[in-house]
Amino acid sequence: VGSFQPSEHQHVRYNPLRDDWVLVSAHRMRRPWQGQVEKPPQEDVPRCDLSNPLCPGAARANGEVNPQYTSTFVFDNDFPALQPDAPEPDACNHPLFRAASARGVCKVMCFHPWSDLTLPLMALAEIRAVIDKWAELTVELGASYPWVQIFENKGAVMGCSNPHPHCQVWASNFLPNEARLEDRTQRQHLQERGVPLLLEYARLEAQRKERLVVENADWLVVVPYWAVWPFQTLLLPRRHVCRLQELSDSERDSAPTGPHLGADCGHWQLHAHYYPPLLRSATVRKFMVGYEMLAQAQRDLTPEQAAERLRTLPEEHYRARPR
Amino acid sequence: VGSFQPSEHQHVRYNPLRDDWVLVSAHRMRRPWQGQVEKPPQEDVPRCDLSNPLCPGAARANGEVNPQYTSTFVFDNDFPALQPDAPEPDACNHPLFRAASARGVCKVMCFHPWSDLTLPLMALAEIRAVIDKWAELTVELGASYPWVQIFENKGAVMGCSNPHPHCQVWASNFLPNEARLEDRTQRQHLQERGVPLLLEYARLEAQRKERLVVENADWLVVVPYWAVWPFQTLLLPRRHVCRLQELSDSERDSAPTGPHLGADCGHWQLHAHYYPPLLRSATVRKFMVGYEMLAQAQRDLTPEQAAERLRTLPEEHYRARPR
Ligand SMILES: O=P(O)(O)O[C@H]1O[C@H](CO)[C@@H](O)[C@H](O)[C@H]1O
Ligand SMILES: O=P(O)(O)O[C@H]1O[C@H](CO)[C@@H](O)[C@H](O)[C@H]1O
Repeated sequence: VGSFQPSEHQHVRYNPLRDDWVLVSAHRMRRPWQGQVEKPPQEDVPRCDLSNPLCPGAARANGEVNPQYTSTFVFDNDFPALQPDAPEPDACNHPLFRAASARGVCKVMCFHPWSDLTLPLMALAEIRAVIDKWAELTVELGASYPWVQIFENKGAVMGCSNPHPHCQVWASNFLPNEARLEDRTQRQHLQERGVPLLLEYARLEAQRKERLVVENADWLVVVPYWAVWPFQTLLLPRRHVCRLQELSDSERDSAPTGPHLGADCGHWQLHAHYYPPLLRSATVRKFMVGYEMLAQAQRDLTPEQAAERLRTLPEEHYRARPR
Repeated sequence: VGSFQPSEHQHVRYNPLRDDWVLVSAHRMRRPWQGQVEKPPQEDVPRCDLSNPLCPGAARANGEVNPQYTSTFVFDNDFPALQPDAPEPDACNHPLFRAASARGVCKVMCFHPWSDLTLPLMALAEIRAVIDKWAELTVELGASYPWVQIFENKGAVMGCSNPHPHCQVWASNFLPNEARLEDRTQRQHLQERGVPLLLEYARLEAQRKERLVVENADWLVVVPYWAVWPFQTLLLPRRHVCRLQELSDSERDSAPTGPHLGADCGHWQLHAHYYPPLLRSATVRKFMVGYEMLAQAQRDLTPEQAAERLRTLPEEHYRARPR
């Protein structure tokens, strides 16, 4: 058997944010791949295409015409999963048939007027405008909704059909599963150890360095010790930030909102999750299927190996070019 | 606003097996789809192809040659995520860096010698041989491992590259997340209500009928009230079955095993989950992406609508043909 090597010997790791486990079997990377191959991301996206409903001046599904926007542009999703006025489900108190109201708002936010860009290809000032808009929407929607979820589905493999750089903002009158889970675990950690979970974690990762991808004065990016997706990363501020209002000029917060605005949220730490679907290359993805859905997530390389590969990537974006 | 209609008005439903919620927004089905389209399942699979490592007489990655099997055929996965002899991870008692040993066995099981069949195209006696083999493997592996997970990844969209009809059997020295969760919720339900959760649920669904897909004297198939995948179904026995040994000739069990063999498992009920990835057709899938991964699962048609569509499908399999 020999001594334990995480990159050789399968083991399970505990995820303290979700209170569950991941199976790490790094030796599986030797497995040949004959499965599905994804199309590489579209390379020849036209900068402006009036048939694309996200472009400045284009018409959307509901007939509205977009303004000639020059920075970010926010509008209501034409097919929202959450609407402000859904009626209350009929009361049924059987514990196996429980329903509750779901109300909210779904917004779409374009990052930039050009379709041939993505966030990493944008100029710093343009990215800053995106973050300012996120903060603005969080304050606006967070005034009445307990949760505001900002997310980007990037690329066809993540179900996104439109190459125009954009994200979505869904606010809801309920705390979604993941938020509820992370709220519980972070609250418990603060009680037990007197320090917010993700603040303690960021400090340790900044020292240990083996899962660090990139850092600056304000932020850290790590492949978390408990990462499930091959190249999953976690963005963490260096100091304790739990509300938008606390942010310095170079930081932005998307912490608990709505009825939680006045509550004590000292356990919560602002963070962003990145879940790229890829495993071996830009066209071979990780499938989270049978065992993962029915039993437990499984990963094929260690978080430390993933962090090392991410660290050695060139500073320059592979599609960077003079504008 | 008007009165509540589940097929018109978004709401959340509680999943008592996982202790979490799903967002149901059926009006989203009206949304046009311009996203990724999957390749339809391969139609012209040759019955026997010696270059396919799952065929009788073919050579596998490790050089072994398969026997000329005529029914099921089981062998060890050549790239197992779980092996019997992994060493123990080094002790580290920090609550944010917890690892534990993972030991187990991964087996592959071919259902039939022909590559151009799938389970629903096989003869009853052939399917019965598969179920008998599942029971046999559960007894064999369950003697030493606490959990034996049987699963089939079906089709390229589920990461399966080999059309030959087969499943996998992964046994582990730990109770995986999903099993642990379902164990806790079922145990608690029995304590609180004096009847196993899934037995009570099956009885109610058999009366209500709106989520029933198919039933016979022994079994029910329903789209669960809390289904996450558009056409997710749940297979349930009509009577309380928690161990393999209790099964009548026409029933089979895959209940808790290993150290739990002797334990009181009266709360547990045998069941099978089906998570088909499809949404609109055989080539348009449901993407469980940004909101689902970061916040909460969301579905676009109600479980009742899905059950109705499944019920109205023809009895005959679309690929059935004289053999
Ligand atoms: O069938 P394979 O090649 O072992 O692997 C497949 O199923 C596994 C268990 O669900 C997943 O972890 C893999 O991502 C998937 O490709
Ligand atoms: O961007 P869309 O078209 O609203 O929808 C996409 O993101 C949603 C939120 O993650 C998912 O529920 C859908 O399955 C996906 O297609």
